Amino acid sequence: MSDIDIISKYREQFVTHLQTRTKLGKPKNLYEPVQYILGLGGKRMRPVLTLMTAEAFGGKAEDALDAALAVEMFHNFSLVHDDIMDDAPLRRGKTTVHEKWDVNTGILSGDAMLILSYQFFENYPAEIYFELTKLFSKTALEVCEGQQYDVDFETRDDVTIPEYLKMIEYKTSVLVAAAMKMGAIVAQASQKDADAIYEFGRNLGIAFQLQDDYLDAFGDPKTFGKQVGGDIMENKKTYLYLKSLEKASKDDQDGLLHLYSIKPDDSTAKVEAVKTIFKESGAVDETKKAIQDFTQKAFDALAKTDLPEKNKALLKQFGKSLMERTV
Amino acid sequence: MSDIDIISKYREQFVTHLQTRTKLGKPKNLYEPVQYILGLGGKRMRPVLTLMTAEAFGGKAEDALDAALAVEMFHNFSLVHDDIMDDAPLRRGKTTVHEKWDVNTGILSGDAMLILSYQFFENYPAEIYFELTKLFSKTALEVCEGQQYDVDFETRDDVTIPEYLKMIEYKTSVLVAAAMKMGAIVAQASQKDADAIYEFGRNLGIAFQLQDDYLDAFGDPKTFGKQVGGDIMENKKTYLYLKSLEKASKDDQDGLLHLYSIKPDDSTAKVEAVKTIFKESGAVDETKKAIQDFTQKAFDALAKTDLPEKNKALLKQFGKSLMERTV
Repeated sequence: MSDIDIISKYREQFVTHLQTRTKLGKPKNLYEPVQYILGLGGKRMRPVLTLMTAEAFGGKAEDALDAALAVEMFHNFSLVHDDIMDDAPLRRGKTTVHEKWDVNTGILSGDAMLILSYQFFENYPAEIYFELTKLFSKTALEVCEGQQYDVDFETRDDVTIPEYLKMIEYKTSVLVAAAMKMGAIVAQASQKDADAIYEFGRNLGIAFQLQDDYLDAFGDPKTFGKQVGGDIMENKKTYLYLKSLEKASKDDQDGLLHLYSIKPDDSTAKVEAVKTIFKESGAVDETKKAIQDFTQKAFDALAKTDLPEKNKALLKQFGKSLMERTV
Repeated sequence: MSDIDIISKYREQFVTHLQTRTKLGKPKNLYEPVQYILGLGGKRMRPVLTLMTAEAFGGKAEDALDAALAVEMFHNFSLVHDDIMDDAPLRRGKTTVHEKWDVNTGILSGDAMLILSYQFFENYPAEIYFELTKLFSKTALEVCEGQQYDVDFETRDDVTIPEYLKMIEYKTSVLVAAAMKMGAIVAQASQKDADAIYEFGRNLGIAFQLQDDYLDAFGDPKTFGKQVGGDIMENKKTYLYLKSLEKASKDDQDGLLHLYSIKPDDSTAKVEAVKTIFKESGAVDETKKAIQDFTQKAFDALAKTDLPEKNKALLKQFGKSLMERTV
C-alpha cells in the first residue's frame, strides 16, 4: 500500500470506531453538539498517528482505537472552547457550536467532552489506564497553558522567541506527541521508545506549526486552507514577526511595529509591506531553517528508537509528507 | 470530641492540605483564578465527608486527602462554569471569576481545574486510581447532565416530579455520594459497603436539596444564607411548585401558572400569594414528607453497611445535623 492508502485505512478504521462509540445520549441538548462537532470531519491526524504508532511498535491498531478516540475527543473539546474564546463563527466551514446553539451550550458540552475523553480509556487494564490517563492529564493541562500564553501574548509587546516556541509547543505539539506516545503505550513499547516517539511527535509538531506560520504569509492561496495573510491582518505575533523584530534594521523595526498597530479596511498594501520586511530582515530564511532544524530533531529522535528500519522509514515518510505541503 | 469539633478537625486538616497542594503555577493568568475560587472558603462539606467516611471504614483521613481535594476542585470547577452560564455576579459574597477577570478566563481556568482534579488522584496505586477516577468521571458527567436538565427545565412547562428529582440528584447529590464512596474506596471497604455508603450520600443529598427548596420559600431570613423567596421571584420550578401544580384546585393551578409568568418589581405580594398556594395545595406537607422519606432511605442504606455501630451513629448524626437546619 502507498502511504496515502495506509493513512486512509487508519482514518476509515478510526471513523467507524468513532461512530460506534459515540451514540447520542441524554439530555439531547448536551450531547447533540458533541455529535455535531465530531461529525464535521477534519484530517483526524492525531488519532491516525495513535493507530500508526501502535502498529509500528508491534501492537494492534484495533487496541489503540479507544486511546485514539480520547485524543480526538479532547482535540474537539479544545476547538469548541477555543471557538467561544475567539468568538469564531466558522469551524471547518460550518457554524461553530456556540453560534449554532449558544455560549452556555458550548461551555457545558465542551466540559462533557473533556470528561468523555477520560472515559474512553476505561477499557484498558488498570496499569495501562494509569499510564495513558496520566499522560493525558499532563498534556491536557499543557494545552490549556498554551492557550493562556497565546491569549497573554496578544497584549504583550515583549514576547521572546523561546516563549513563542513554548506556546506553540504546548498549544499544539504536545497533543501530537502524546497521541503517538499513547500508541506506543498501548503496544507496550519500552519506556525509552515511548519517550523517543514522544520527542519525534513534539519536534515534528513544532516544525509543523512553524510551517503553518510561514504558509499563512507565503503559502499558495490555491492550496493553503486558510486565507493567506490572515495572521498579518490580525497582527498575530508569529515566529516570522518576532524574528523580523530581532533582525531587521531600526527603520524596518519601527515600520513593522507601526504596521502591526493598524487594521486597515483594505489590507493588501499592509500585507505586502510586512512580507517585504519578513523577507529582507532574513526572518524568512531563519524560519525555514528553524523548520528544518525541528524536523531534523524529530528524525533524530526517531532514529534512537529500537523500531524495525521499515517502520522507522514509514514514520519518517509520514513526517516528510506532512512537511512537504506547498512550502 | 463533639460532632462539630470532629467536623472542624477534618475541615482544618483538609484546608491545610489544600494550601500545600495548590501552589500558584504559570501562566499566572490561568492559575490565579483557581487559587482565588478555592480560597473563597465555603463549608467544605464534600471533602469533609470523604475524610470522615475513610476513617469510618477504618482508613486514615490522611490517605483520603487527595481524593477529597479532587472532589473540592471539581466542585469549584462547576461553580466557575455555572456562574458564567447563570451570569452570576457574586459567589460566597465575593466577585465571581468571570466578573473579576473575564468570561474567557473563567472558561479556561475552569477547564484547567477539571484536569487538575484528575491529577490529584495520581498519588494512589494504579488499581485504586482506576476505581476512583472511574467513579469521578461518571459523577462529573452526571453533574453536567444535571446542569443541562436544569437549563432545559427553564423553558419547559411539562416537567414531571421524577424528572425534577433526577435533575437534583445529578446536579447535586451524586457528588456528595461519590465524595463518600471515595472515602470508602481509599479505606478499601467492601464493594457492598462502598455501594451502600453511596446510597446513603445520594439519598441524603436529595433530601438536602429538597429542604433547600423548602427553606428558600419558608426559611428564616435571619439564618437562611440566601434571599428567602428567591426561587419564587425567579419562577424556578422547584419540588414545591411542581407538587402544587399536581395537587392544587383548578383555580389555584391557573393562579400559580399566572404568578409564575410574571416578574413584578415589588415581588412581596407575588411571593406571599405563591406561598399560600404552596401551603393550601398540600405541597408543603408533601415536600416535608419527601424530605423525611429520602432521609430515611439514607439511614436505611447506612444500616445495611458493616460499619461498627459507633461509626454508623456518627454518620447518622452528621446526616441529622445537616437536615436540622432551621426547618
